[in-house]
Amino acid sequence: MALIVHKYGGTSMGSSERIRNVAKRVAKWARAGHQMVVVPSAMSGETNRLLALAKELAPAQQGEDYGRELDALAATGEQASSALLAIALQAEGMPSVSYAGWQVPIKTNSAYTKARIESIDDARIRTDLAAGKVVIVTGFQGVDASGNITTLGRGGSDTSAVAVAAAMKAEECLIYTDVDGVYTTDPRVVPEARRLHTVSFEEMLEMASLGSKVLQIRSVEFAGKYKVKLRVLSSFTPWDINITEEAASGTLITFEEDEQMEQAIVSGIAFNRDEAKISVLGVPDKPGIAYQILGAVADANVEVDMIIQNISKDGKTDFSFTVNRNDYAKTIDLLKAKVLPVLGASEVQGDTKICKVSIVGIGMRSHVGIASKMFRSLSEEGINIQMISTSEIKTSVVIDEKYMELAVRALHKAFDLEQAPV
Amino acid sequence: MALIVHKYGGTSMGSSERIRNVAKRVAKWARAGHQMVVVPSAMSGETNRLLALAKELAPAQQGEDYGRELDALAATGEQASSALLAIALQAEGMPSVSYAGWQVPIKTNSAYTKARIESIDDARIRTDLAAGKVVIVTGFQGVDASGNITTLGRGGSDTSAVAVAAAMKAEECLIYTDVDGVYTTDPRVVPEARRLHTVSFEEMLEMASLGSKVLQIRSVEFAGKYKVKLRVLSSFTPWDINITEEAASGTLITFEEDEQMEQAIVSGIAFNRDEAKISVLGVPDKPGIAYQILGAVADANVEVDMIIQNISKDGKTDFSFTVNRNDYAKTIDLLKAKVLPVLGASEVQGDTKICKVSIVGIGMRSHVGIASKMFRSLSEEGINIQMISTSEIKTSVVIDEKYMELAVRALHKAFDLEQAPV
Repeated sequence: MALIVHKYGGTSMGSSERIRNVAKRVAKWARAGHQMVVVPSAMSGETNRLLALAKELAPAQQGEDYGRELDALAATGEQASSALLAIALQAEGMPSVSYAGWQVPIKTNSAYTKARIESIDDARIRTDLAAGKVVIVTGFQGVDASGNITTLGRGGSDTSAVAVAAAMKAEECLIYTDVDGVYTTDPRVVPEARRLHTVSFEEMLEMASLGSKVLQIRSVEFAGKYKVKLRVLSSFTPWDINITEEAASGTLITFEEDEQMEQAIVSGIAFNRDEAKISVLGVPDKPGIAYQILGAVADANVEVDMIIQNISKDGKTDFSFTVNRNDYAKTIDLLKAKVLPVLGASEVQGDTKICKVSIVGIGMRSHVGIASKMFRSLSEEGINIQMISTSEIKTSVVIDEKYMELAVRALHKAFDLEQAPV
Repeated sequence: MALIVHKYGGTSMGSSERIRNVAKRVAKWARAGHQMVVVPSAMSGETNRLLALAKELAPAQQGEDYGRELDALAATGEQASSALLAIALQAEGMPSVSYAGWQVPIKTNSAYTKARIESIDDARIRTDLAAGKVVIVTGFQGVDASGNITTLGRGGSDTSAVAVAAAMKAEECLIYTDVDGVYTTDPRVVPEARRLHTVSFEEMLEMASLGSKVLQIRSVEFAGKYKVKLRVLSSFTPWDINITEEAASGTLITFEEDEQMEQAIVSGIAFNRDEAKISVLGVPDKPGIAYQILGAVADANVEVDMIIQNISKDGKTDFSFTVNRNDYAKTIDLLKAKVLPVLGASEVQGDTKICKVSIVGIGMRSHVGIASKMFRSLSEEGINIQMISTSEIKTSVVIDEKYMELAVRALHKAFDLEQAPV
């Protein structure tokens, strides 16, 4: 008997029929003797429906101005799906109770629409588990110190699930989704993409941060920090599949490198077109400019991804970075209004028609020439590289977004990802 | 400058366009110098949509078994509409903040799906009003002593609004709805029905309890207990109507009988087909039987409306009462299982195909023969009366539901309600 956390995505909760299947699956695990905590997302489409209504009312909404109310609004989706799952479990004869974020409570900071979890009180959950109940905790949301509802950002239910698993020292956290695991790249782009049986925590972290949508990046960070055993698997296998078989399916995110890992040099190709590029040109090259530019951006609660500073020429340099496209207009305005005049830079430029493509693999650590193989492969396809960023286990490039699929296919082939490693 | 509470029904909140109009109307009142507290219902159709999903998952659901989760589910509708209204007000340049029931908090007992308000803490609301904000309080819901979400039953947002108005000693509580006031009867049944400019609190209480759907009965009780000045008016007048004109429209519920009231003998005809009739036959006529029967029913949290005990014959009597149709099957089962064996009664009978039709009027107090005029009028239409119940200001009859419209039209005509009183 173990304490297990299940997380179900929006598609898995997408109709009463699917919610009933989730209930039957969870009940199966509970009846096998496990203590079950379940974190459901909102029913698919619900969060978008709610935020679309908000957009109709405040077309020009800019981030945090409406943040408190947007969070109170969006949090209702998970509250509803959690209550529905509790009802479905009870209808299956399985005692169950659902808790909104504030009821647990899951305490967060006050950064509306992208709050961070600070603490989880598991007392109420443990009492219910001890009483034989399945406990359902709403994903995606929490409550700040002043009792305001907060949300954790898109995909935040993954983070909720991992945080609950960490707080309760759960044996394993199973992330049920509409795909059956983590792939070498998106099979919609590369049909030959292959499911990985295991992936290292560090690779998963890179893949998530680089645009692989299987898991929210912060859930992976959380899992790494608290060593939560994480598995991504499909909610579309029959609910009454043998439980041992189910527990071994999907992709396991591992922490021990000496486990039987697939020793590919490159494990996968990640990509996204959620970002936009911003360049500040003609910046006087003196200490503190990075802080002057990015400090102002951070103060506006905009997350920056890639950052590149070119070499200096005539005492001037160019400074480029990428942000989420949703933050693009706001960031450009901010730089023009507050940073350019102070900095004495000549110009701000931007481009939203870009994408980022990355190769990821722990094997890269001990192999030279991987990055240059990537660049050669892109060059052979006639694709121009606009920005490059590297870390120990990944190399990312920014290219024109129209070449994204071409680049991903070329790289998948160049690194032989359609073949299982020997 | 006064403290005013506005309440908007589901139809008034039915789309982003309508929510924007509500925001403009509220902003107009705020800019006229009033401190505004607004209580919105869920967007029309939303509560039904959520509860239909629950019903798909637990078709045989019986009342309180699923109560806690049904309340957590249903409460999301008002949380969403409240946040949307706050966003709409902010988009109009009017500072605004929304609070869910638990955030105020509005404390209730733990009777899920029909909780009663026990206290309202107005500290947070007053702070925001003093800071120049419009405060939006979710209707229909509260929180019990253990931190569980509760709802107040259908139409509960009216009660929330009146309770907030009472707690804050508001100058007036305006109930905006999709009709422009209280009518002598439902205009869909009787086209000649006439709007009342004022109606006494007692008449309104009877009309609400007898099935007039304009206001929830408990909101009227609350208004009476705390002397909250209540006005029912339409949210479909243009939002920029002159504020003095708007404040005088609709129907005012009055407490002082010496106000300029319309002195009709009968003010209105109320009706409903939400009830079912239950009879316990052959009950030994001895002290305590009413308690033995109705105590068991009350313990099951079923509300009883009309209660009639026939005269005794051979030491036996028949005992009849009406309950909401939703509680009918449960009550019959309960009586058969727990009451019949103990009581030694011979049989339980029931009928769901009934309706209740009532004439209401403060003028009845000082006029004799009003009830007999009602009975004669029904008799002339060939309508058989199954149960009769009277109070100082109303007479109700239970009849076959197929005669409902016929009875209402006949009574409306018999009491000359299409004419304004002289």
